[in-house]
Amino acid sequence: MNPLFAAVNGVILPSDQASLQISDLSIQRGFGVFDFFKTLNYTPVFLEEHLDRFFRSAAGLRLEVGKTREELRELIAALQEKNQLDCSGFRLTLTGGYSRDSMTPGAANLVISQVPLPGTISEEVQPSIRLVTYPHRRQLPEIKSIDYLMAIWLQPYIRECGADEVLYHLDGSVSECPRSNFFMVTADDVVVTPARGILSGIIRGKVLDLARQQFAVEVRDITLGDLAEAKEAFITSTTKHILPVLQVDGVEFGEAGPVARLLNAELYALCHDLRL
Amino acid sequence: MNPLFAAVNGVILPSDQASLQISDLSIQRGFGVFDFFKTLNYTPVFLEEHLDRFFRSAAGLRLEVGKTREELRELIAALQEKNQLDCSGFRLTLTGGYSRDSMTPGAANLVISQVPLPGTISEEVQPSIRLVTYPHRRQLPEIKSIDYLMAIWLQPYIRECGADEVLYHLDGSVSECPRSNFFMVTADDVVVTPARGILSGIIRGKVLDLARQQFAVEVRDITLGDLAEAKEAFITSTTKHILPVLQVDGVEFGEAGPVARLLNAELYALCHDLRL
Repeated sequence: MNPLFAAVNGVILPSDQASLQISDLSIQRGFGVFDFFKTLNYTPVFLEEHLDRFFRSAAGLRLEVGKTREELRELIAALQEKNQLDCSGFRLTLTGGYSRDSMTPGAANLVISQVPLPGTISEEVQPSIRLVTYPHRRQLPEIKSIDYLMAIWLQPYIRECGADEVLYHLDGSVSECPRSNFFMVTADDVVVTPARGILSGIIRGKVLDLARQQFAVEVRDITLGDLAEAKEAFITSTTKHILPVLQVDGVEFGEAGPVARLLNAELYALCHDLRL
Repeated sequence: MNPLFAAVNGVILPSDQASLQISDLSIQRGFGVFDFFKTLNYTPVFLEEHLDRFFRSAAGLRLEVGKTREELRELIAALQEKNQLDCSGFRLTLTGGYSRDSMTPGAANLVISQVPLPGTISEEVQPSIRLVTYPHRRQLPEIKSIDYLMAIWLQPYIRECGADEVLYHLDGSVSECPRSNFFMVTADDVVVTPARGILSGIIRGKVLDLARQQFAVEVRDITLGDLAEAKEAFITSTTKHILPVLQVDGVEFGEAGPVARLLNAELYALCHDLRL
């Protein structure tokens, strides 16, 4: 199979020839930000929201994107034209650039790549997953940095626990999973998601909008104690939309509940409308 | 000026041609480890200790170095032959490799690079520096990972505070600076350095050995309150050896104290002996 095309600082080339020099601050110091959005039927989904967040993340690390929004849209369109993937994920990465002293950022390097997305997004809710908690909070959580040191380091632990994903908490206050946001539904049918110590997910925002039309919604701290009394839990992400949570540390929620099913169907309809 | 030579997976090439593909987990997820040692008069200093730690860090992230110690020594010697730098720093970086899914480590990529070292190491102690504290603990602190997100993000804050470097603490317990270890001397002439939440610096170990020959030494937690009563403080690192601390958050220690001066001179002699 021929490699897909990617763009490095605006130059489009086969992804196996797309590289960064070893003085780049991502390689030297793990310093950079990214964003990730999907295309369905060749159409970017929530692109403007993702571009908003990408520019916010860059500003958070004081990195200059070096391209306008329009130039980014043009590069994305050019890669779509080259790669011809209908359902895909686009990753925009902005690194600290080539550093003269391994510490001081240089002109940021911008990498755009596209990968096929397995068809995990559907009207029907996906199979439920099991979470295990771990005491951690992401560094600068509101910035979508490339720092996934703990997330990758924890993979064997997650498997040893018989879980599918980790849920971070700090002093008993739940925040998020490494690549998704966390929601629960209380015994009184209130939809709750944490307010602090999280990345503000694009799908989290859409799910909050949809939930507010039909449920009471609270954006506030969730304690591990709150979880024990919840009747439903689910996570949200760009690639998975809504995944129901079967259990957290062995506390059972059962299979997908009515709130997760309803919101997943509505989210699917919203994305489907965008494709028309 | 011609670029220095570097080695990528054992292949020696000019450093501006030394690169990693964009699917590398350092670029995608900030996932990797490194080590850094110096050469003085063309002789690697404490090389075996640095190699020990490099292999320990790699194992900590479950990465295979892919070369034996002897092969690493040979690559280092080959780069010395090419680059002809008498006083230099060698960086060994091991990344999570080319990942098929942006999350799962592949075969690790090994990068070795050499840079000239400014002559900051001398028998005379260097000018004192000012520290500002910040509440933070490095992730997986005992592993020398490439995660310097907070260290780089904090640079403008450090300058705004009129300081030269940041000293991390957690709940008032001092740990380390981003690239150096912290020591203090109590009113009773006890040399103290933190035990937990730190990277075990090679120079920290040598300074502890030297200090134990002449002073009472304690390796234990240091609180911000302890600092206020200390009569001397200094930091240690491979590139700077010992830097006296003039002040921490405005608490003054005065210019270089006798303990910092003595240990610096002895450390210099130790490294000088190695060069003979």
